[in-house]
Amino acid sequence: MQIFSASGIPSARSRAHDASHDPALPRLIVNCLPLSGRERVSFEQAAPAIAQEFIGDPERRLDLLWRAHIPSDLLGRATAIIGNVEPGELAHAHRLEWLQTWSAGVDRYLVPGVLPPGTVVSTASGAYGQAVAEHMFAMMWALMKNLPAYAVSQHERRWHDAGRAFSPRGATALIVGTGDIGSHFALLAKAVGMNTVGIRRSAGTPADGIDVMHGIGDLDHELHGADVVALCVPSTSSTHHLLDARRLSLMKPSALLLNVGRGGAVDGDALVSALDRGSIRAAGLDVTEPEPLPDDSALWTMPNCLVTPHVAGGNHLPGTADAIISIALRNVRAYAAGEPLSNRQ
Amino acid sequence: MQIFSASGIPSARSRAHDASHDPALPRLIVNCLPLSGRERVSFEQAAPAIAQEFIGDPERRLDLLWRAHIPSDLLGRATAIIGNVEPGELAHAHRLEWLQTWSAGVDRYLVPGVLPPGTVVSTASGAYGQAVAEHMFAMMWALMKNLPAYAVSQHERRWHDAGRAFSPRGATALIVGTGDIGSHFALLAKAVGMNTVGIRRSAGTPADGIDVMHGIGDLDHELHGADVVALCVPSTSSTHHLLDARRLSLMKPSALLLNVGRGGAVDGDALVSALDRGSIRAAGLDVTEPEPLPDDSALWTMPNCLVTPHVAGGNHLPGTADAIISIALRNVRAYAAGEPLSNRQ
Repeated sequence: MQIFSASGIPSARSRAHDASHDPALPRLIVNCLPLSGRERVSFEQAAPAIAQEFIGDPERRLDLLWRAHIPSDLLGRATAIIGNVEPGELAHAHRLEWLQTWSAGVDRYLVPGVLPPGTVVSTASGAYGQAVAEHMFAMMWALMKNLPAYAVSQHERRWHDAGRAFSPRGATALIVGTGDIGSHFALLAKAVGMNTVGIRRSAGTPADGIDVMHGIGDLDHELHGADVVALCVPSTSSTHHLLDARRLSLMKPSALLLNVGRGGAVDGDALVSALDRGSIRAAGLDVTEPEPLPDDSALWTMPNCLVTPHVAGGNHLPGTADAIISIALRNVRAYAAGEPLSNRQ
Repeated sequence: MQIFSASGIPSARSRAHDASHDPALPRLIVNCLPLSGRERVSFEQAAPAIAQEFIGDPERRLDLLWRAHIPSDLLGRATAIIGNVEPGELAHAHRLEWLQTWSAGVDRYLVPGVLPPGTVVSTASGAYGQAVAEHMFAMMWALMKNLPAYAVSQHERRWHDAGRAFSPRGATALIVGTGDIGSHFALLAKAVGMNTVGIRRSAGTPADGIDVMHGIGDLDHELHGADVVALCVPSTSSTHHLLDARRLSLMKPSALLLNVGRGGAVDGDALVSALDRGSIRAAGLDVTEPEPLPDDSALWTMPNCLVTPHVAGGNHLPGTADAIISIALRNVRAYAAGEPLSNRQ
């Protein structure tokens, strides 16, 4: 869906090229980010020759989820949009050549018919790594020290010793999916004395924080040795029930399972069974299948399972907003200069 | 209470000297540690010329709290005891010259009349640093990511977003008490990108993991800048209500308070008020005043307070037992060689 060539020069035949270089139809960036005054100036300076409309509300900066709504007259004139507009509204954006989202995932914009043909889509991939990895890391520590059990005891006014604790020092984390989130988690794990083993499609590509990288074909073997299995995989057909009953049975009885990627990467029924039998020690899940977790799910009340309601990402950490804005700013500069955009889909 | 001189040679006048060197009254070490067979051999080899009785039960190795009970005939013959015997039983240990505890604190053995005059007491100080600091670190992460609130929501089958999260990256931890626990916590904090400021009696003494050390006189000033205040102080008259209403009011509204030292270091009523008003963000307490927390304490149900029932230390981490045994072994070797003991009180 790329309209810029690798060199950054628009291809001669693209609709976007025609639109952006016709003086009668000047380019227009509609920016829905909740920018501070200073950040807005940065965007203006990044593309001084291009008209920019700023419709984000700075008061929404600290909202956990941002919403973009663009008036129809702006939609019809926009050549670039920064923000996650409802896909249905984009039918009116007939001049659109570039969409920069503030989400990392953009599946719903890639459905044929949503965007004008040739529209470039770039994402905020990378902005959420810190937040999601830190949430996962916090879940790991909490489970190692029995803190969810203590929180529930406290709620019931019980002063009750929950028993043995575990330490990450010297333990092995198996990180399945070593993109931005997995790599960030690995760096945290290493910092507190863990050994880190990575699993990715291609074992030949290294990642920060990973001591030893394996291809997906080694997953079964590596599950045997892991004290913590950290799933950070996207939702694809190849990750559906990646951890099924058989693979869960390969894990150590003392091991923790963490899942922050997509709920469907773990077979939920098999997980309930493994937690119930004690064939793994505990699980920390920020994602479930389906979401919200159904009322009758056994996971709600399992003492060795911590469930958080898909909050690891979103905009829960102030640094996430800063990172999203920084990615968008870099791409506005590239858009103005006719250079390649980052995070292109 | 030292019977060995600094050089390690027993002083000529000490009762212990007389006892330990009278061939008619050979020295006897009664060892209550729950040793493995291999560890027992290490102790025998560390003091081959001294009789040793091993009465610890290896099956109790994984108990969270160890108990020592010595038969009265052994008590009467013991010149050295390794283990926390009930103070009242020690009246019969009239030949005792050395007590090695498996606790870090030994207040109850220092009460006049409990031990024969001149008995050396050495502790397992240092064995608990990892366990206590890690528990404190886990509480910090859990509170930053709202995990106690999520655990309670989960218990009530509620899929509910608890709002903004915090990151330790770039935040400042003020560590009050920079002994073994405080220093270990500081190293963990630095490893995940925090700045560390220490407070100790004497600012001139550095500690591992502390970026900047201050004397206790600077506490008020340093409270202003701290994102996390980590109290790791022992129970003394000078630490009683060290964090009172006035000092709590100096903390940032976004700051966390962690207490793993002694419950009395924080004024409980003032803390309830600060948490209730939101003048600090949250607290994580492994110690309270009194313990257990009384049924009517407001802390039980405050959503921004995590209480754990004085479990950070004890024997919850397998590494703690190893460290206690290692300290005792080193001191048995010193006792046999007439050299100075470590961790003397």
